[in-house]
Amino acid sequence: MITRMSALFLRTLRDDPADAEVPSHKLLVRAGYIRRTAPGVYSWLPLGLRVFRNVEQVVRDEMDAMGAQEILLPALLPRDPYESTGRWTEYGPNLFRLKDRKGAEMLLGPTHEEIFTQLVKGEYSSYKDLPVILYQVQTKYRDEERPRAGILRGREFVMKDSYSFDLDDAGLQVSYDKHRAAYQNVFDRLGVKYVIVKATAGAMGGSQSEEFLAECEVGEDTFVRSTESDYAANVEAVVTTVPSARPIDGLPAAVAHETGDTPTIDTLVDWANATLGGEYTAADTLKNVMVKIRKPGGEWEITAIGVPGDREVDFKRLEASVEPSEVELLEESDFVSNPALVKGYIGPKGVQGAGFTYLVDPRVVEGTSWITGADVKGQHFVDLVVGRDFTPDGVIEAASVRDGDPSPDGKGVLTSAKGIEIGHIFQLGRKYADAFELDVLGENGKPVRVTMGSYGLGVSRMVAVLAEQMHDDKGLRWPREVAPFDVHLVIANKDEAAVAGAEDLAAELDAAGVSVLLDDRKASPGVKFKDSELLGMPIVVVVGRGWSNGTVEIRDRFTGEAVEAPVDSATDAVLAAVRG
Amino acid sequence: MITRMSALFLRTLRDDPADAEVPSHKLLVRAGYIRRTAPGVYSWLPLGLRVFRNVEQVVRDEMDAMGAQEILLPALLPRDPYESTGRWTEYGPNLFRLKDRKGAEMLLGPTHEEIFTQLVKGEYSSYKDLPVILYQVQTKYRDEERPRAGILRGREFVMKDSYSFDLDDAGLQVSYDKHRAAYQNVFDRLGVKYVIVKATAGAMGGSQSEEFLAECEVGEDTFVRSTESDYAANVEAVVTTVPSARPIDGLPAAVAHETGDTPTIDTLVDWANATLGGEYTAADTLKNVMVKIRKPGGEWEITAIGVPGDREVDFKRLEASVEPSEVELLEESDFVSNPALVKGYIGPKGVQGAGFTYLVDPRVVEGTSWITGADVKGQHFVDLVVGRDFTPDGVIEAASVRDGDPSPDGKGVLTSAKGIEIGHIFQLGRKYADAFELDVLGENGKPVRVTMGSYGLGVSRMVAVLAEQMHDDKGLRWPREVAPFDVHLVIANKDEAAVAGAEDLAAELDAAGVSVLLDDRKASPGVKFKDSELLGMPIVVVVGRGWSNGTVEIRDRFTGEAVEAPVDSATDAVLAAVRG
Repeated sequence: MITRMSALFLRTLRDDPADAEVPSHKLLVRAGYIRRTAPGVYSWLPLGLRVFRNVEQVVRDEMDAMGAQEILLPALLPRDPYESTGRWTEYGPNLFRLKDRKGAEMLLGPTHEEIFTQLVKGEYSSYKDLPVILYQVQTKYRDEERPRAGILRGREFVMKDSYSFDLDDAGLQVSYDKHRAAYQNVFDRLGVKYVIVKATAGAMGGSQSEEFLAECEVGEDTFVRSTESDYAANVEAVVTTVPSARPIDGLPAAVAHETGDTPTIDTLVDWANATLGGEYTAADTLKNVMVKIRKPGGEWEITAIGVPGDREVDFKRLEASVEPSEVELLEESDFVSNPALVKGYIGPKGVQGAGFTYLVDPRVVEGTSWITGADVKGQHFVDLVVGRDFTPDGVIEAASVRDGDPSPDGKGVLTSAKGIEIGHIFQLGRKYADAFELDVLGENGKPVRVTMGSYGLGVSRMVAVLAEQMHDDKGLRWPREVAPFDVHLVIANKDEAAVAGAEDLAAELDAAGVSVLLDDRKASPGVKFKDSELLGMPIVVVVGRGWSNGTVEIRDRFTGEAVEAPVDSATDAVLAAVRG
Repeated sequence: MITRMSALFLRTLRDDPADAEVPSHKLLVRAGYIRRTAPGVYSWLPLGLRVFRNVEQVVRDEMDAMGAQEILLPALLPRDPYESTGRWTEYGPNLFRLKDRKGAEMLLGPTHEEIFTQLVKGEYSSYKDLPVILYQVQTKYRDEERPRAGILRGREFVMKDSYSFDLDDAGLQVSYDKHRAAYQNVFDRLGVKYVIVKATAGAMGGSQSEEFLAECEVGEDTFVRSTESDYAANVEAVVTTVPSARPIDGLPAAVAHETGDTPTIDTLVDWANATLGGEYTAADTLKNVMVKIRKPGGEWEITAIGVPGDREVDFKRLEASVEPSEVELLEESDFVSNPALVKGYIGPKGVQGAGFTYLVDPRVVEGTSWITGADVKGQHFVDLVVGRDFTPDGVIEAASVRDGDPSPDGKGVLTSAKGIEIGHIFQLGRKYADAFELDVLGENGKPVRVTMGSYGLGVSRMVAVLAEQMHDDKGLRWPREVAPFDVHLVIANKDEAAVAGAEDLAAELDAAGVSVLLDDRKASPGVKFKDSELLGMPIVVVVGRGWSNGTVEIRDRFTGEAVEAPVDSATDAVLAAVRG
């Protein structure tokens, strides 16, 4: 079927929408692919929907090819199963909750582990039934605090989510590896530039986990990779290289100094260099960041995080470390009600003395010696030694990761880059099987607890990711696999014969199985060319001034190259370009 | 791709589910097509999803063929637009409402007139842009008071909804007729038995409206049709044939009688026949049903509905007549606080005397004479004449429709049947365009208010309707257009050569573009045959005992006929049967 722009529900915009910051958002709106309906909630217009469906089809192909079976669960879900796993609470304000007319509490599914687990429990009962991998392409809901960048982070979005059910760890590994390979196939077919990074499991629970990140300047996820190996990880998942403990014997005794007005690391280092002599840096100080942590359903508990003074606490890393607990910085009122905590001069002794928990960065090992707060205004300890003068209550990954940090695999150092999460694969293990007692009868007649994996792939988000990675300064550019149309045929010649020739060409391409967007509008050639660049079909064919000389122009939207083709063989030339 | 039952996520059930009443619900659950996730909320398992997608594709084909353009709107919607049209309130408890993390009120879309209107307003501005027809296949939500019959009336369901935008009434009629024809194509392709009936517009507003009802014993919608014409209508839409007014002159005067304990029509008729003599029937009495009616956002107002005593008030007809107001029967406490209303003896004089509204059935015309309540316990009027002794405040369509009533088109009488609504087409007119000031610049340079149509087609419901209409006592039966698989190939012979032969046959059918469900399980032939009947593929091929004699069996699931085909030409024979 030929789609005519004269009738297409499409109006391109000259100006960027006021609420758009990233290129994909601006272009998808300007090109009439999407429209905003509510914050973080978008409508797909005809061209956008075609890209979206094409992405969906690639995902479906690869899922089917790996032997996964498609089903479709509702978005409107009962509270009970999510209560059983604790996620009704853990999701916090990210969950859309509602009550039905009878007062029953329900939610809009953010992800469906609970329901899949219950479903398999209902159908399957024997080891012979496993393994099984089920998937759906389904609309999900998360009440993001900061929906942004159009469909890049929406509150209603479409994901492919799948779940594997296996008898043992080896089986789970197979299912996990199948997904890993299928995801690579999907992303390779789509032409996305991506990296696979080690990840934390987040609210999912579970053990092994990797993220697929599309490399992208505007990405929200920072990841790091080694300069010398294929190590790559989400910043939240970076494991600090722990130095060896040092001997304590012979270290100078800790001394409390009057350091004056030195509430910051900078002022403290200045004081040390001026007063103690030597070459002190922020790395010699121990910074104590006060937070409060709350387990799901529990009370806030005050905790100090001690990190070397040359590093910040990275809140996302901290959050990932305490998950599913929540964490917040202490507020002024907390300090007021806890006078033992002397802001700017807090040290491990004061924290533990007041009965609070003291956690440290993994680098704060036994035998290291620190300048840190003495818990009295204007005073700091020098040479406070771990394992002699204080003993932390535990270790926590919360300090910022920096370019140049050693790679956890011992090879090279880390450099950072930005990415957008496009896929996430988890080995859940038995968390959900335990919650719902999902057992099957084993070969030996005894019940076996099933082990699960959970695998997400962003379908609607992928449209934005492709726009983001592939656009140029003129507009969108779509690879053929997902382009709304294979060919954008522009009629840029009012001559009757040219118009008829363009119609014939469109009909021939259509008959050859090529999808054609035909610009048959009355607009000027300039407007049409600009729109063809903005809309981004991979091949643009122009029936223009060359027509009288017996030629049409075939433009490659990616390379920008244009060639003239004789009218007589135009169809073949376009087909060759399309099938490139 | 060949789907193997040995690995298919499917467990058929021997017993009907406890909560199922209608055959389609029982069979779709037993055959493993759907599973209940919450009341009125269902999951699609692999076979069900295939039928669902097939139905969806037929609908999409026909919508595309009529020139409608597909888009996709969100399900999670902001309150504002629905506030603008009053539907935020009018939908009452049928609407799922929720608040987001910032307290903004949102809803789950029950239908999308508002959003489509706003969208077109945002994109289009000229008469040259119209007409346009937009559609989506999308998940909708209605918090039904009585979700029932599985996916026949769910709270989360999938509809195709489309909306037409035209400059004038003639254009709207064209868009409406296109939909009517497209719906007929869809339903004809699906093989549904249906009737097109005149309908009321309900909460949609608007004027002309027809429903497509699938004829079905278990349907919730009663419709009537003429014995002598093609008139058919939803009971709510039946317009009573109004008799002519009669001359009042010469009618006997109204007399109040002591009628004793006669609070019911039956007891009153008995009294009349015993006391007055003659042959009185219930049709000579005027029954006054007390209700209260509340406009959206308004107060309850007490109203009496007077209908001939041989008819009931049909609450659905009453509701349709007062829409968008709500209506309820008066409660005991209402009578207590309104002593002028003497239960069992209420009459028009008392109702109007107490300041309440008195509405009557259209048959209660001027000059008709009634036995009715005298508003005193144990008393009734005889010969109370309309237009002489009382004048109703208005007329209302609320009385029950009966088989034998005259057809509104004057041809024949009505007979009733049950149906399930599978499609609904409306001429909305300018209700929504007015609410959002949807104008385009007309050819003469002046703004023109757009006129709209709204058209719904139940996609998920259709799966149940087909199951309901086509099943037999052994199980489901699917027409090829929507069947999960074209062929169900049953291996009912353990012989190695037979198994290999079945595999070859499956591969050949697959290569010929026929979708195959291969029963390669270790189960007994009996179990497999029973499952093949329950699952309902249109063609069942059995590689069984005949194999050693060089034959396979080809069964037609609809006719029940079975033929033997030689193994050598089995593929061709099956292909012929499939394409039959």
